[in-house]
Amino acid sequence: MSEYKVALIGFGGVNRALAELAAEKNWHWERELGFRLKIVGVSDLHLGSVVSPGGIDLDALRNLPRDKGAFEKLPGGKAAQETEQVIRTCGADIVAEATFTNPRDGEPASSYCRLALDSGISVVTTNKGPVAFHAKSLKRAAEENGAFFEFEGTVMSGTPVIRFAKESLAGSDLIGFEGILNGTSNFVLSSMESDGLSFGEAVKKAQTLGYAEADPTADIEGHDVGLKVTILANELLGAQLRPWDVACEGIGGLTAQALQDAAAANARWKLIGSAIKAPDGTVQASVKPKLLPLENSLAGVGSAVNAITFKTKVLGDVTVQGPGAGRVETAYALLSDIISIHKKKTAGGASK
Amino acid sequence: MSEYKVALIGFGGVNRALAELAAEKNWHWERELGFRLKIVGVSDLHLGSVVSPGGIDLDALRNLPRDKGAFEKLPGGKAAQETEQVIRTCGADIVAEATFTNPRDGEPASSYCRLALDSGISVVTTNKGPVAFHAKSLKRAAEENGAFFEFEGTVMSGTPVIRFAKESLAGSDLIGFEGILNGTSNFVLSSMESDGLSFGEAVKKAQTLGYAEADPTADIEGHDVGLKVTILANELLGAQLRPWDVACEGIGGLTAQALQDAAAANARWKLIGSAIKAPDGTVQASVKPKLLPLENSLAGVGSAVNAITFKTKVLGDVTVQGPGAGRVETAYALLSDIISIHKKKTAGGASK
Repeated sequence: MSEYKVALIGFGGVNRALAELAAEKNWHWERELGFRLKIVGVSDLHLGSVVSPGGIDLDALRNLPRDKGAFEKLPGGKAAQETEQVIRTCGADIVAEATFTNPRDGEPASSYCRLALDSGISVVTTNKGPVAFHAKSLKRAAEENGAFFEFEGTVMSGTPVIRFAKESLAGSDLIGFEGILNGTSNFVLSSMESDGLSFGEAVKKAQTLGYAEADPTADIEGHDVGLKVTILANELLGAQLRPWDVACEGIGGLTAQALQDAAAANARWKLIGSAIKAPDGTVQASVKPKLLPLENSLAGVGSAVNAITFKTKVLGDVTVQGPGAGRVETAYALLSDIISIHKKKTAGGASK
Repeated sequence: MSEYKVALIGFGGVNRALAELAAEKNWHWERELGFRLKIVGVSDLHLGSVVSPGGIDLDALRNLPRDKGAFEKLPGGKAAQETEQVIRTCGADIVAEATFTNPRDGEPASSYCRLALDSGISVVTTNKGPVAFHAKSLKRAAEENGAFFEFEGTVMSGTPVIRFAKESLAGSDLIGFEGILNGTSNFVLSSMESDGLSFGEAVKKAQTLGYAEADPTADIEGHDVGLKVTILANELLGAQLRPWDVACEGIGGLTAQALQDAAAANARWKLIGSAIKAPDGTVQASVKPKLLPLENSLAGVGSAVNAITFKTKVLGDVTVQGPGAGRVETAYALLSDIISIHKKKTAGGASK
């Protein structure tokens, strides 16, 4: 049995859910997965920092109020966010980075990831920024320092599509993918079609139900999907795309009438992120609304659900459908990354 | 780079497709997967046997006519099937068993698998019989002899659902599954609904198009799905079912009228194989037609496509959809099993 010492960077919904899962399931993970988690450091813009190499009490952590500077009340805690200090001093084996995505340059999360990896600490992250902008150099940093860099949760939250494509579909000659990779825009389109809502009304409904943020721009205009397409194309198809290389067209131009006309013709508009590798190895990637016939596996994916179809030469199309958001679901992605690290370590491969 | 010496038991569509894949892709697999395959023995009821520890010429093998006793023409070949002799003498590291499923007791394939495993030779198989009847004892034989027993292709052909559930969904608290696991019956139901065909007419159409065998009983009455449910429930949910423990009801009782009435009510009849684990660990499994609302991810799965929804406590429902048959697709399942064995061997775990 192993115990991994984990530092949580960001303590919003996702990392708090990871702490909750650990509090509830550590005993179960010990038996089923062969390891338990000990949280030794946390840093959060709003709550402050805490360093406790002996382990933070998980019940105290999960029940911590959301008040500004709340970490001050814990042993080893401070009201100020001191992320670098936490990474340097808490003695973590693994950093779980779950702060918000900065779509311009992936900072400061990318620097936190790099600091950890350069120190030989593995990183698991749900943050699209560091991966979309710097996956290659961060993976190299991991390799050079005997650490691991895992990011399953950046694309479909807990639904394990990156690992499915890389591991379960190995040898199937993957040549591309197309996916519904944003729950907010899919919910908006579903509402416009089924309830006849205007675009604005559907966005408002999504906000009321918690499917859309106060500023839904990144979801609606396709930029969130653009980052995910960048991550997948680089990781699965060997592309070297930067986020701005992926042309993004959002769903703002679609009317309820257009959606209902499509439905009458046995088709459905979906916001599709896709990439395809040409025989010469070049990769064409895009984000745009596409009209899918109802027979397409993605056409039936409604509400805020996500799905992706992998295009392979040997097997044809294989589709995975599951949640693409949710705090517990996304925390599970971090757990699945830690499981992957555990497997690699116990297989006797890497040193750390 | 490794080279695996493979014996092919059964040389119908699937193992012939594996030989074709090896002939075309060995150079590619060397680079991408780190190994190549050498076929050192083949045995087939109709074609005879061939043993060639130095490797059978792959082009001669893939182009071999389908005439009775045809192996006689190859160096080291005989017109007679001598499966045990082939396994004992060809020097294989891996036996690829792809003969027809015997739904009564899994023989003689089970004995072939056991002979190989007892000799320390790993087995990959697409044959439901040995797995549904004897998975536990065959896995134990593999373990005791430093070999591996892999059977991804027994459930959804090349679509890697067993490995997805065991590896990619580890830690998600899997409590059950429901799936469309038989392409023939799904094609028949789809044709009855969309074309208004009677059951008999739809079966005939499926036979004409090659989706159904001359005797479609096992597909139509649910027994094929019953074997798959047995395999999945035992492997994923820790059940100890024998095939006859799974109650099977087929699709013969459904009329075109019933299917069209369901469609008018936004629902669809599907033949569903399912199992669910109760909190006390007991597993309830069944095969029967179920009326699914169109929002269910399985309702949109048409024609001969297969799909399975895994029920997890942490992630909710995750669905995988893909081919459930096809000679190349099923041969890919054997390749994916060999990839899995290669990973375990190169991870430094087992001895063989």
